[in-house]
Amino acid sequence: MSEAIRKNFASDNIAPACPEVMDAMIRANSGPAPAYGGDEQSTTLEARFAELFEHDLRCFPIATGTAANSLALAALVPPYGAVLCDQSAHIANDEGGAPEFFTHGAKLITIPSDDGRMLPDALQTTIELNREGGIQSTPARALSLTQATEWGTVYSLARLRELTAIARQNNLPVHMDGARLANAVAHLDCSLADITWKLGIDVLSFGGTKNGAIAAEAVLFFNTALAEDFIRRIKRGGHLWSKQRYLSAQLLPLLHDNLWLKHARQANAMAQRLAHGLRRQPGAKLPFEVQGNEVFVVLPEPLVTQLEAAGYVFYRWPTPAGVDGTLIRLVTHYATEQTDVDALLASL
Amino acid sequence: MSEAIRKNFASDNIAPACPEVMDAMIRANSGPAPAYGGDEQSTTLEARFAELFEHDLRCFPIATGTAANSLALAALVPPYGAVLCDQSAHIANDEGGAPEFFTHGAKLITIPSDDGRMLPDALQTTIELNREGGIQSTPARALSLTQATEWGTVYSLARLRELTAIARQNNLPVHMDGARLANAVAHLDCSLADITWKLGIDVLSFGGTKNGAIAAEAVLFFNTALAEDFIRRIKRGGHLWSKQRYLSAQLLPLLHDNLWLKHARQANAMAQRLAHGLRRQPGAKLPFEVQGNEVFVVLPEPLVTQLEAAGYVFYRWPTPAGVDGTLIRLVTHYATEQTDVDALLASL
Amino acid sequence: MSEAIRKNFASDNIAPACPEVMDAMIRANSGPAPAYGGDEQSTTLEARFAELFEHDLRCFPIATGTAANSLALAALVPPYGAVLCDQSAHIANDEGGAPEFFTHGAKLITIPSDDGRMLPDALQTTIELNREGGIQSTPARALSLTQATEWGTVYSLARLRELTAIARQNNLPVHMDGARLANAVAHLDCSLADITWKLGIDVLSFGGTKNGAIAAEAVLFFNTALAEDFIRRIKRGGHLWSKQRYLSAQLLPLLHDNLWLKHARQANAMAQRLAHGLRRQPGAKLPFEVQGNEVFVVLPEPLVTQLEAAGYVFYRWPTPAGVDGTLIRLVTHYATEQTDVDALLASL
Amino acid sequence: MSEAIRKNFASDNIAPACPEVMDAMIRANSGPAPAYGGDEQSTTLEARFAELFEHDLRCFPIATGTAANSLALAALVPPYGAVLCDQSAHIANDEGGAPEFFTHGAKLITIPSDDGRMLPDALQTTIELNREGGIQSTPARALSLTQATEWGTVYSLARLRELTAIARQNNLPVHMDGARLANAVAHLDCSLADITWKLGIDVLSFGGTKNGAIAAEAVLFFNTALAEDFIRRIKRGGHLWSKQRYLSAQLLPLLHDNLWLKHARQANAMAQRLAHGLRRQPGAKLPFEVQGNEVFVVLPEPLVTQLEAAGYVFYRWPTPAGVDGTLIRLVTHYATEQTDVDALLASL
Repeated sequence: MSEAIRKNFASDNIAPACPEVMDAMIRANSGPAPAYGGDEQSTTLEARFAELFEHDLRCFPIATGTAANSLALAALVPPYGAVLCDQSAHIANDEGGAPEFFTHGAKLITIPSDDGRMLPDALQTTIELNREGGIQSTPARALSLTQATEWGTVYSLARLRELTAIARQNNLPVHMDGARLANAVAHLDCSLADITWKLGIDVLSFGGTKNGAIAAEAVLFFNTALAEDFIRRIKRGGHLWSKQRYLSAQLLPLLHDNLWLKHARQANAMAQRLAHGLRRQPGAKLPFEVQGNEVFVVLPEPLVTQLEAAGYVFYRWPTPAGVDGTLIRLVTHYATEQTDVDALLASL
Repeated sequence: MSEAIRKNFASDNIAPACPEVMDAMIRANSGPAPAYGGDEQSTTLEARFAELFEHDLRCFPIATGTAANSLALAALVPPYGAVLCDQSAHIANDEGGAPEFFTHGAKLITIPSDDGRMLPDALQTTIELNREGGIQSTPARALSLTQATEWGTVYSLARLRELTAIARQNNLPVHMDGARLANAVAHLDCSLADITWKLGIDVLSFGGTKNGAIAAEAVLFFNTALAEDFIRRIKRGGHLWSKQRYLSAQLLPLLHDNLWLKHARQANAMAQRLAHGLRRQPGAKLPFEVQGNEVFVVLPEPLVTQLEAAGYVFYRWPTPAGVDGTLIRLVTHYATEQTDVDALLASL
Repeated sequence: MSEAIRKNFASDNIAPACPEVMDAMIRANSGPAPAYGGDEQSTTLEARFAELFEHDLRCFPIATGTAANSLALAALVPPYGAVLCDQSAHIANDEGGAPEFFTHGAKLITIPSDDGRMLPDALQTTIELNREGGIQSTPARALSLTQATEWGTVYSLARLRELTAIARQNNLPVHMDGARLANAVAHLDCSLADITWKLGIDVLSFGGTKNGAIAAEAVLFFNTALAEDFIRRIKRGGHLWSKQRYLSAQLLPLLHDNLWLKHARQANAMAQRLAHGLRRQPGAKLPFEVQGNEVFVVLPEPLVTQLEAAGYVFYRWPTPAGVDGTLIRLVTHYATEQTDVDALLASL
Repeated sequence: MSEAIRKNFASDNIAPACPEVMDAMIRANSGPAPAYGGDEQSTTLEARFAELFEHDLRCFPIATGTAANSLALAALVPPYGAVLCDQSAHIANDEGGAPEFFTHGAKLITIPSDDGRMLPDALQTTIELNREGGIQSTPARALSLTQATEWGTVYSLARLRELTAIARQNNLPVHMDGARLANAVAHLDCSLADITWKLGIDVLSFGGTKNGAIAAEAVLFFNTALAEDFIRRIKRGGHLWSKQRYLSAQLLPLLHDNLWLKHARQANAMAQRLAHGLRRQPGAKLPFEVQGNEVFVVLPEPLVTQLEAAGYVFYRWPTPAGVDGTLIRLVTHYATEQTDVDALLASL
């Protein structure tokens, strides 16, 4: 890897695709293939995901996470409904209104939390208030949970169980935004089944792009009845590739020999190492537990400037009022190496 | 190429990507790159397109033609407006309602023609009738032309000039669906400038996928004022790739040394050879001029069955009432070779 | 009635409300009433409609026919679906894109007919072609029939039975645009039950505005399962009146003692008288059967000008190519009197 | 007025229409009238509003406040944009998602305040944070202010001036939800011009329904360029009445001799009297200034139950955590009389 990438902690999407993915693209690039998902790679993909999740499912590869999340939500809520989510959720803040576009204007009702992990009490209260609104409200019709969260924290299985139980009692289907699900599984050391359908997740956006692919996610329906007509939503959103083999081909190598997990473990370990080093830095404060591949840290402004001057690339985050210093985000990924982290720490 | 591809005349999207595109993907796959189009490939792409079209323009790479067309239309018409197009248009028949989705319900008003090429008189009449509808109608707010057409015919520059003049007189911006623009240019032997902004085209969907790419089109705005906020529509549609370098990287080699034109010339020549051979076939009738890379032919049903039995892959088309025989479509592409065509003809 | 109204044959919506409706408005205007349909008039209305139609139903009063039709369609088709309707349908031509708005972009697939009455064969063929379109099409998900039609003709019960049978075989729920249902019932001399749910109509827009009300229609669901959440669509469309008593109050007197039918009979009889007189006019040609309250007639242009000069108000219609003369539309209504018709005929 | 209405403090929309409005309806109910706003009442209405506001304007009567607000917002923001509003705004909480429907999914970004009156600093901060979101955010494109607010408070002219200045600096057009504008004007004792276009309000929803009408509001564009095509949005939303004279006829008498203001003064005075009496009640706490016609009061639960038992009708509101007692809302209206208020106070 180049010097440039060793100093780039801006996001997990700045990394190139892993060699296994590129090899698969090259292998896929021969001979004709039926259009629109009739190809061999796409058929295989569904079977592979079903094995991996130990459950019957329907699989739809999609090029972007924004589209995967938004299409999934559109399959759950009517245009006049609402989706409950954490106030930090990607769907609420970072998708340029795509959920509203695909759902035809459903509302995102955001629930405050300290660290991106929704609290069961807050969920319960929000549902009750929403119900009292009656005909004048936008009725809650789905719950969306992000695992790992946008603050780099990971829901425990117990917490997820509580949340999905409340959803079930209120007839809310549950979507999981798993753009970084691999990082959560790596942290929890559980199975993919444990963290999804066994907890009552109906639909999952399984991330590939941040974990070694070029541009590939998968929407997985464990509740297969909800997948009816989903392909029509994909087509109508302009997300059905005529040459779909090139989407599926990116995901297959990630599933092979659990490469997705190996990648996530590497990213997580690097984030741990980074967090460990930063905690020893005078004046540094880490506002959230580091459980995935994102490290949020408040540093004295001179240190932040120094890092930038040394060529490091990362995002400055809106620093909460009353906090002394500058909040920045450092993201590791599958290709981040120990020496990269140590070099950053050394440069402080 | 494999035996399978030599016998596949189903569509130009069954072909793999050309070697130049794959090589560019591999080259793009190194080091970090800024997300969302800040990468080097994407910046270069706009400059390259501007040179090629000899005009200032804004360029937005998009993975699918359906999204490219629909996003472009959304930039032209308000939700309560209408788009005028030929009754054979891809946007009207083959995009699963994507134009209605992206425009938030604008209407497609289709104008009948014999061969996919709109007649100026028919356009004029449609505009007048639409205007008479007043407040109860859906007012025409854009014209969309397909070049080459869905029936494999190509508009002459003179015809396009007449149509765009009518559009201009009626304040209708003009979109061109150029999924097969390369084939039209190869047929007309004109420049890209001649066939687009010089005729008053405001926005173009420039096709890559059917012409050697994996999944890449470009929306080009010659009327750059219309491009304001276009990136927001792309993001909201889930079509903004975080790793956009891999979209731009597919298009760059097609622009280099006019590979896009070389590909189209090959496809067109093969379609000509095929048409020539078919015309000599007893009982064959070609309902449309063959000017691009699509050959529509009515054959006696036994011959069609025979072709299928010989392993040939193609689409049967709804045969018009009163026609004796079976209408089929044969599509050639950049990788179709002379021996492939000759073999098909020999098998009849 | 004033001189002005006696000479106005422009539409049935130019007439004022009938005295019974105004009296009911005045009676409703006293004391408080619960908002949003909790009032007594609204509750009574549903029961009265159920009696009249001899069937359990859900009733939703709506101020305009455009909203009634569009909301009803939105309850039947998903945004990615299509509604099949006659090419003359009000929903397709005269509602400014409202069906597309309320359905979030569903497509209206129009089926040609000679006189506004869809032919079973044409319906069957359209359904088959639509199905062949597969994933690239907008799948038919509902049938909408207009009774009486926009050309003033009336479907026979037998024809409706054939059409709804085809719909049922193809799992298409059926909507009836009954803006002029009263006129159709008056013509057919059947019961409201005969012409609606007994034929398989799932949802009906029952017209009031054209038949003596101020601004009031009712959406009636015979298939009550489809009415789930309908009130939310109404609210979201801004069509839920806080003072709903004033909507319901308009409809109740029309239902009382079959005033709706008496009105329609008067309008129809006047149209018959008008048609009878016009047929005797040299040079006049009536292109459609006159069965409701609309008379379309081709007259020599000098006669049309003469009528206008005499102070008559009516619409000129686009005259079909090849027809000699000018097509005009004359509409009668509940307040049209014999002397008004005779005066018009005498002025020719 | 009946006993029932004297005890009903649930809302201003439980009242019947005032006699002047009913008289105007009866007068309007004669002779023919051109459909869709071509009638005399509608033409007069625009001129009358222009006089009253001392400014050129475009006027569109609409039956409901939800539709008036939502249509107005749709004229200001693109589907991918956002509207900034107070967290208590009617558009955000009480319109069943209508703003999202009419704007095709624009986002409502709510800004917290203590009493329904947005703080300039909070507005400024929200705009800056939104801008930092870049392409991933939903960009703020309009500001909506509610006057009087949902908590019965009234913005001072000075505060409005600060807020609209910020909007102007950021190129945000400003909408005012004036469902209870009359009450605000009565409180401030200013002119309609002072409180609207002189402050930079571009579009106003002027309330009639809560102030003596049956179902009638007016959308007024002071910035007339924004009104282009607005009639098409109205038609497409099913809100264009064919018999529009009956909408305009409701508003004209309210404008005559400032009946709208007389009504509001009466309602406000009754709210003052009620508040005055309640403040003397042991255990009562009024969380907001009473400036319009809404009184929010926290009472000991036994007192609330006692009021209900005495036949009084009103809404219980979600009582904030930590507050001792029960929050209720009492609304007065144009027909509330001194004896009604005194009777309620006496019953405590």
